[in-house]
Order: sequence, then C-alpha cells, then structure tokens
Amino acid sequence: MKHKIVTISRQFGSGGRTIGKAVAEKLGIPCYDQELIAMLAEESGFSKEYVKESGEHASRSSWLSSLLSDRVYDTPITEDILWEAQRKIILELAEKGPCVIVGRCADFILQDRDDRLSAYIHADKELRAKRIVEVYGEREDSPEKRVADKDKARAAFYKQYTRRDWGDAENYHITLDSGKLGLETCINLLVELY
Amino acid sequence: MKHKIVTISRQFGSGGRTIGKAVAEKLGIPCYDQELIAMLAEESGFSKEYVKESGEHASRSSWLSSLLSDRVYDTPITEDILWEAQRKIILELAEKGPCVIVGRCADFILQDRDDRLSAYIHADKELRAKRIVEVYGEREDSPEKRVADKDKARAAFYKQYTRRDWGDAENYHITLDSGKLGLETCINLLVELY
Repeated sequence: MKHKIVTISRQFGSGGRTIGKAVAEKLGIPCYDQELIAMLAEESGFSKEYVKESGEHASRSSWLSSLLSDRVYDTPITEDILWEAQRKIILELAEKGPCVIVGRCADFILQDRDDRLSAYIHADKELRAKRIVEVYGEREDSPEKRVADKDKARAAFYKQYTRRDWGDAENYHITLDSGKLGLETCINLLVELY
Repeated sequence: MKHKIVTISRQFGSGGRTIGKAVAEKLGIPCYDQELIAMLAEESGFSKEYVKESGEHASRSSWLSSLLSDRVYDTPITEDILWEAQRKIILELAEKGPCVIVGRCADFILQDRDDRLSAYIHADKELRAKRIVEVYGEREDSPEKRVADKDKARAAFYKQYTRRDWGDAENYHITLDSGKLGLETCINLLVELY
C-alpha cells in the first residue's frame, strides 16, 4: 500500500497541526490546515470567521434535522451547505496529489481511498491545557475548561456528520499519544509509515 | 522515556498476540499471554478453562453488584477473586523485569507505571473473520458473528473492571490497524518505539 494522502485528526492542543506540518515538510508535499478555511470560505461564500467557528461545534437545529428521517424540511441549513463545500474541496485536494490534510473530518470524507493513511493525535488533558497557554498563547482563565469544551465541540461536529465516535481507534490506521511519545517521535513514525 | 513493559490489547483475530510474541522475541524479553492463564489458575485455584473463559465475558451478577455502591453484599464474587489474582500477577510480572503482556487489562492495571508502552491492535471485521478461519482454524458457521461476539464480550469485561471504553484511543499510547498496515509493520513500529 502506498500512502498518498495523510489525514490527521487531533485533539485541541495535542500538537496535531504541528505534526501535520512537519510530516508534510519532510515528505515534500503540501499540508492543508488553515488553507482549508480560506478555500471553504471562497467555495461556500461564508466568512472565514464563520467557517473557522463552524468546524468546532454542532448546531442543535442540525442535530434535530438529522433526527428527522428523509428531512421533513427541504431547506438545506447553513452547516450542511458548508459540509458539502468541505466534502467537495477535500475530495478535490486528494485528487490533485499527495498531501497532508489536518482536521475537517478528512479521514471520513476520504475513507474510500485506499491510498490514505489516517492518523489521530491525542494527549493528556493537563498537558494540552499547558500547551495551549505556552504555545498558542491562549489567555483563558481556565485552559483546562477550554480544552474540554473544544474536545466536546469537535466530537459533536464529527458525530453529526460522520455518525462515528471521534477518537475511536477503529476509525484510524494509527493513533498516537503525542504527550507520552513526543512530537518528534510521532512525526518520524508517520513519515516512516508513508 | 524508556519502555520496560509493553502491554498489548487486541481485538479478536487482529493478530495482536502474534505481534506481541514477535515484538518480545525481537527485544529478547518474555511475552506473557497463555502463560498468564496458567499463573492465574494457580493463584486463584480455578481451572484453566474457567480462567480462560472469564476474561471473555462480563457476568450480569457482577454488573449488578458493581452498581450497588459500597457493596451491599460483602461476599466477593468469583469474577472479583479472579480479577484480584490477575491484578496481583500482572503487577508482579511488571516488577520482575521487561516483558510484553497480551490482554487481561494489563494496560489499565499498569497505568501508573511510566515505563510502559501501551498498544491496541485492531482490524477490519471482515479481515478478522477471515483470519480466525485461516490462522486459528476456527470452524464456526459464522466467523463474523464469532468475531462480533468476542468483541462485545471483551469490551464488556474491560468496561466492568476499568470503567473505560475498550478501543478508545485515549487509553493507549499507540493504536494500530493491523489489517491496513500489516503485521510486520506493526511489529517493527513497536520494537522501534520501545
């Protein structure tokens, strides 16, 4: 199996984005992360701020609508428009050539491609809380709460669109505890696997 | 971090045991798998057959008893005696020196040791069903059902004693899809990490 695409899902503060960028650099292939936001904004017509925020929460209305089988209301809601744009862009990027894609349910969207290595990066909550203050410069009163809120939001968004549990080992080819193993080891393992 | 102990949790038919044995061999350290059954039988006084079976299901009575806070009935039930024996033996083995331990919730029992690498091996259900027929020589009418039943039983046993979800990436330092990555790659990755 040759891995052309690497998808990286990551807990907030786990260093998944750093790992993705470093893996892409070592492999000499593009890494799509923040770039996806701009593409999505352009494709969907929504603002970058809205696009960025939308990947981090599941809306109650959309939850409700997904419960109604066969969609009683036929009006596509904002999140679904965005999801379609996201799907389209990620499928196109994967078609274009080898790359690393961070976040945005790319593991699920590209699940039918055999040439994909799907990774999930996680770490201890305390470590991540420390990291978002030190590395991201977050200034929240409670970084622990911020981490927990983000985890919850990402899991809800993932569940809403994929019907899968975020962080369930079965959804990924490899999962790594970046806190225990260290970022460098995670990067090297993924490059090696590719 | 130096890894002295490797714990391997594995889905039935994923090749986790084969991986554990090969990793131990390459590292020149002992691997405890079936050996644990004999030790547990001796420690607890139960038969090997009973010990083997007990790791594969959670009993309803024990579920019930665990719901009753502070144990209304003070009589330890059979599974709990076995669990205590299991805990004791695994802690002692880890104390004795470097080793690989397959199954038996060793990842949870040894969670306070910093010198441990905890791995979870999984694979696609169809692949595992095929493997148990080809490699284990299982002759069930429906190997798919056998795999699903074993998964369910191991998850229930794990939940009963650890209060954690089996296969949740957060519980392990690394999880690997042996079907997608291949046994050889999994073995080499773990040896390298050690």
